[in-house]
Amino acid sequence: MRDTYHERLDAVTDQLVDMTRIVGSMMSRATQALLYSELQTAESVIAADDDVDDANREIEQRATDLIALQQPVATDLRIVVGSLRMSATLERMGDLARHVAKVARLRYPEIAVPEELHEVFREMGSLAERMIEMCGSVIADKDVSLALQIEQLDDRMDDLHRQLFTTLVSPEWKHSVEQSVDITLLSRYYERFADHAVSIAKRVVYLVTGERFDELPSVP
Amino acid sequence: MRDTYHERLDAVTDQLVDMTRIVGSMMSRATQALLYSELQTAESVIAADDDVDDANREIEQRATDLIALQQPVATDLRIVVGSLRMSATLERMGDLARHVAKVARLRYPEIAVPEELHEVFREMGSLAERMIEMCGSVIADKDVSLALQIEQLDDRMDDLHRQLFTTLVSPEWKHSVEQSVDITLLSRYYERFADHAVSIAKRVVYLVTGERFDELPSVP
Repeated sequence: MRDTYHERLDAVTDQLVDMTRIVGSMMSRATQALLYSELQTAESVIAADDDVDDANREIEQRATDLIALQQPVATDLRIVVGSLRMSATLERMGDLARHVAKVARLRYPEIAVPEELHEVFREMGSLAERMIEMCGSVIADKDVSLALQIEQLDDRMDDLHRQLFTTLVSPEWKHSVEQSVDITLLSRYYERFADHAVSIAKRVVYLVTGERFDELPSVP
Repeated sequence: MRDTYHERLDAVTDQLVDMTRIVGSMMSRATQALLYSELQTAESVIAADDDVDDANREIEQRATDLIALQQPVATDLRIVVGSLRMSATLERMGDLARHVAKVARLRYPEIAVPEELHEVFREMGSLAERMIEMCGSVIADKDVSLALQIEQLDDRMDDLHRQLFTTLVSPEWKHSVEQSVDITLLSRYYERFADHAVSIAKRVVYLVTGERFDELPSVP
């Protein structure tokens, strides 16, 4: 009974980590589809979102069964409840990767992002990938120090997000309104993705320490 | 014991309904701040978001205590788990109202929305308010038919969202990139708000019928 109990609890955590892998792969491919105008890559991201939705539903089912059958308390219960919250967050991160892929598909065979902004989006994509990968490690290993690093990467993402808006409203910006709209939304998708990664990190810190992240000292 | 149990369960539902009221009031004031350039109204929305965050945390605490102390099963457990999901959704809807208010504050004393688009945003605001109000009734009364109506309002919101994008990229659009960026984001905030309302409706339908919304016939 005890084994089954912990196996079930671990299965929920394992599936969360799986979700981070799927979502990370989606965001990586979405960035590639966006910058290299790859239609099939974009389609694969859009299709993969169903897997994330399925995983989210499965985690809810597993968590509900686990609560009903094995009545976890204290830390275990907090882990189960936290997993429900985190899987909902990961589901939204999958949506954001899908949104990026949809912009890529919409503009195909054109490229939504003007040449001079490719480097910024490449960095945003790379940050997003690192952050979700770190989320996977944070969930798997309950690593609080790594959770704090995720917030540092988010600061960089925010900088890039602001930088893009500054570029858009500068007199040098000569592109169409359509491109302005695309860049506005794309930038927001990456920025939101990063925010969600931070919320997962905060959640794990709370699980481990019992303290809200906001009250913790930030890493230097 | 039985009374306490149902009192606790009802308290979670009541707090969810309270959240819909707070969020509805926020979105209503955010739209007003946006269209009439009211700084103090915008500030009040931004401040109110803390109340939503607090309510979200309280619901999690109540739900966790209820599970630990009273071990609900079957439908009751689904309600508790569903409440956790819905309160997270309402928390994000509060964020979206705050985002609208922040745009209003950023452009004060100017008005972010050009005159000719006021009517569209007024309707989006009105739809958002009706949808969140209906969410409150749906949660309180478990009213499936009302849940289906929320999806109809969402169709109208999507129409307005598309209409705005068409306006933005039309040759008649003569406003600055800054305004294009504002309209892009604002339109998305309302559209997302409506999507979240639909997800709450779906959740209640699932609780009541055990069936996923997508598989239900849509209302004519």
